[in-house]
Amino acid sequence: MENRLSFSNPVITLLTDFGTQDYFVAAMKGMILSINPTANIVDISHDIPPQDIQAAAFTLLCCYKSFPAGTIHVAVVDPGVGSDRKPILIQCAQQFFVGPDNGIFNWICAREKDWGAIHLTNDQFFRHPVSNSFHGRDIFAPVAAALSMGSAPAAFGEPLKDIVQLESLAPSAISENTIQGRIIHIDHFGNCVTTFTRADLAPGKVAHSWKLLVNDREINSFRDFFSEAGNNEIFCIFGSAGFLEISARDASAAEILNLKRGQSLLFVSAALTEINARCN
Amino acid sequence: MENRLSFSNPVITLLTDFGTQDYFVAAMKGMILSINPTANIVDISHDIPPQDIQAAAFTLLCCYKSFPAGTIHVAVVDPGVGSDRKPILIQCAQQFFVGPDNGIFNWICAREKDWGAIHLTNDQFFRHPVSNSFHGRDIFAPVAAALSMGSAPAAFGEPLKDIVQLESLAPSAISENTIQGRIIHIDHFGNCVTTFTRADLAPGKVAHSWKLLVNDREINSFRDFFSEAGNNEIFCIFGSAGFLEISARDASAAEILNLKRGQSLLFVSAALTEINARCN
Amino acid sequence: MENRLSFSNPVITLLTDFGTQDYFVAAMKGMILSINPTANIVDISHDIPPQDIQAAAFTLLCCYKSFPAGTIHVAVVDPGVGSDRKPILIQCAQQFFVGPDNGIFNWICAREKDWGAIHLTNDQFFRHPVSNSFHGRDIFAPVAAALSMGSAPAAFGEPLKDIVQLESLAPSAISENTIQGRIIHIDHFGNCVTTFTRADLAPGKVAHSWKLLVNDREINSFRDFFSEAGNNEIFCIFGSAGFLEISARDASAAEILNLKRGQSLLFVSAALTEINARCN
Repeated sequence: MENRLSFSNPVITLLTDFGTQDYFVAAMKGMILSINPTANIVDISHDIPPQDIQAAAFTLLCCYKSFPAGTIHVAVVDPGVGSDRKPILIQCAQQFFVGPDNGIFNWICAREKDWGAIHLTNDQFFRHPVSNSFHGRDIFAPVAAALSMGSAPAAFGEPLKDIVQLESLAPSAISENTIQGRIIHIDHFGNCVTTFTRADLAPGKVAHSWKLLVNDREINSFRDFFSEAGNNEIFCIFGSAGFLEISARDASAAEILNLKRGQSLLFVSAALTEINARCN
Repeated sequence: MENRLSFSNPVITLLTDFGTQDYFVAAMKGMILSINPTANIVDISHDIPPQDIQAAAFTLLCCYKSFPAGTIHVAVVDPGVGSDRKPILIQCAQQFFVGPDNGIFNWICAREKDWGAIHLTNDQFFRHPVSNSFHGRDIFAPVAAALSMGSAPAAFGEPLKDIVQLESLAPSAISENTIQGRIIHIDHFGNCVTTFTRADLAPGKVAHSWKLLVNDREINSFRDFFSEAGNNEIFCIFGSAGFLEISARDASAAEILNLKRGQSLLFVSAALTEINARCN
Repeated sequence: MENRLSFSNPVITLLTDFGTQDYFVAAMKGMILSINPTANIVDISHDIPPQDIQAAAFTLLCCYKSFPAGTIHVAVVDPGVGSDRKPILIQCAQQFFVGPDNGIFNWICAREKDWGAIHLTNDQFFRHPVSNSFHGRDIFAPVAAALSMGSAPAAFGEPLKDIVQLESLAPSAISENTIQGRIIHIDHFGNCVTTFTRADLAPGKVAHSWKLLVNDREINSFRDFFSEAGNNEIFCIFGSAGFLEISARDASAAEILNLKRGQSLLFVSAALTEINARCN
């Protein structure tokens, strides 16, 4: 890992399940600004469903690349707070990631491959007394602020070889021309984001004839942009984060099709009969 | 149009219908900070109802004057994203407005009268590849950031003579002493903001005897401030953005009267009989 | 009171009941940046329930200590706007507090004991014309911005000896071993924050045998951290702001127990019979 932050104007992002009606987010910001008054704090979201580590992991996966080198991402969805789950710092993709070791940064590490982790054990960087329920304020915010002031990653603790894994995003092959994925996110507009990427559906693998199977429904309309679709049309589109989405024009595909996050779906690259039975 | 931004500390505001649970807003902020690390980003709102161009247009109309000269407003409510709707930059009121050409800045231009527009065609300012569903991140954010760094408006594309129009906010005369307007916004407290301004109801036009007619209801109480009203009183008040509002003390006038955005209403400046029939 | 702000990089926080779908918060930010383009604005929350002064007062009480010296907190929950309620500036705990004199800063003053107040009467610091419904934009934001630029507190008006009081947070003694408090806040996760602090339950006062009584329910499980609790367990825990909370693991204690904000509860430090009758 690099010795210390050598980027100017470091950004500190915050991603939590704290909601916005409590004092939690403000307390983290106050802590950061108490240590680094020039920190540039950016909210990613505080509306992650409570305790939903995968939702936070996916949200960060979709936007970390938009931030400049040197950005410090603090992510706190932390059902294990106060227990023996480790607080960690990850260095990856010329950025930093601070939060609990519960898989929240795992998909980014899996994509980037080259990463290093530190177990945050040096409590001279913590706010004291450290509460048992709010490490966001007492550990993660002050560590991020100290990092943004130029403290070297190695100063925060010992290297960690392994971090907690999350269920993989990669689709699994069901047969030569069928892969299984899942709905990983339903966005504000009701678009259902699947785990299928362009690479999963690459020309080498997929014939021109294809269909997406979900909830006994077969979707085989593909659009390049939203307003290209007809009214009441359900279609697939590659979303801005590179994942295939199930969408409806000016309407919520999730509501129309009654889709839920986590549901599995099949992508079939040639005409097959009776495939529906395999898709629950 | 002026040649380039000559104000220090330019503010970039964001106004969208993206909600706050997704990565969309964060991706825009990351893009801006990747280009201009010192940009001062301010959220106006991300809770505009999905695809509701008029709601965004009205929100911006109510607050752009509060921002300093040189502010760059980025507004993205963009049902036509990916189609041939134009991306534009408007210079008006010593500020800049960046977004889709769908009417979103039209009411500001109509009020200010003096404005110029550029069709954003110079893709050297865009993030590549430009997605078909997220021009907020790929076109509008990077253009705003480049503008805040001092790029001249003319560098972004060719001047546009016409921009898309929205339905006018001006009331229409029904008779000598009756004007028709509509409810343009219902705020967080349930106040119903009408399209009537002080100028519309000026002494020259309006007698001392007046009434507001909506939903078979006649309102003729006028208050200067909220706590002046009695309990359960429905009254009119001039709101902080200069529009006449229908309000209730410590309660939601919209709920009490079952009013909806878009409803028409009549302002009658003298006693008239059987006017109710004209007000649907 | 000190003569003027001598801290660098002053932070201005905003706490309101304005919600996030209107232009209100943006207008305040625009006003601040029009006066001090380098102000560092931090949102505490805009999701305080409409007109709920106690909710705002408690939220600020829980996080002001996390902010650096010199921070200016602007809190606008202001049902009396436009009436004769006073606009005030309080200096306390090396920080500043700007808002209506309706009790919103009272619990902080009560805790800190040493404070001074100014009645904001010098309208040269206000935005004109001052509206009757939005002092957040027209009085409090510009005063905070001027303060952050170095104007002396005394320049804003005359000292005030008394400020409006809120109902005290201190529990009341019911008997030698029973104190009565109330639920002061229910957070985003459904934790019910009580008015009992560690000091209220100090060893000198409380025996090892104790119970919390609420809604005919007796709670006597105490946990140090969340994941220590069993599934379906209702337990007490000291929250990160120092108050005793009623919690459930990965669930909403408020929903499970049907608890409401404002409900009274009893803390009994030794076994007693028939205490339930006293707890409504």
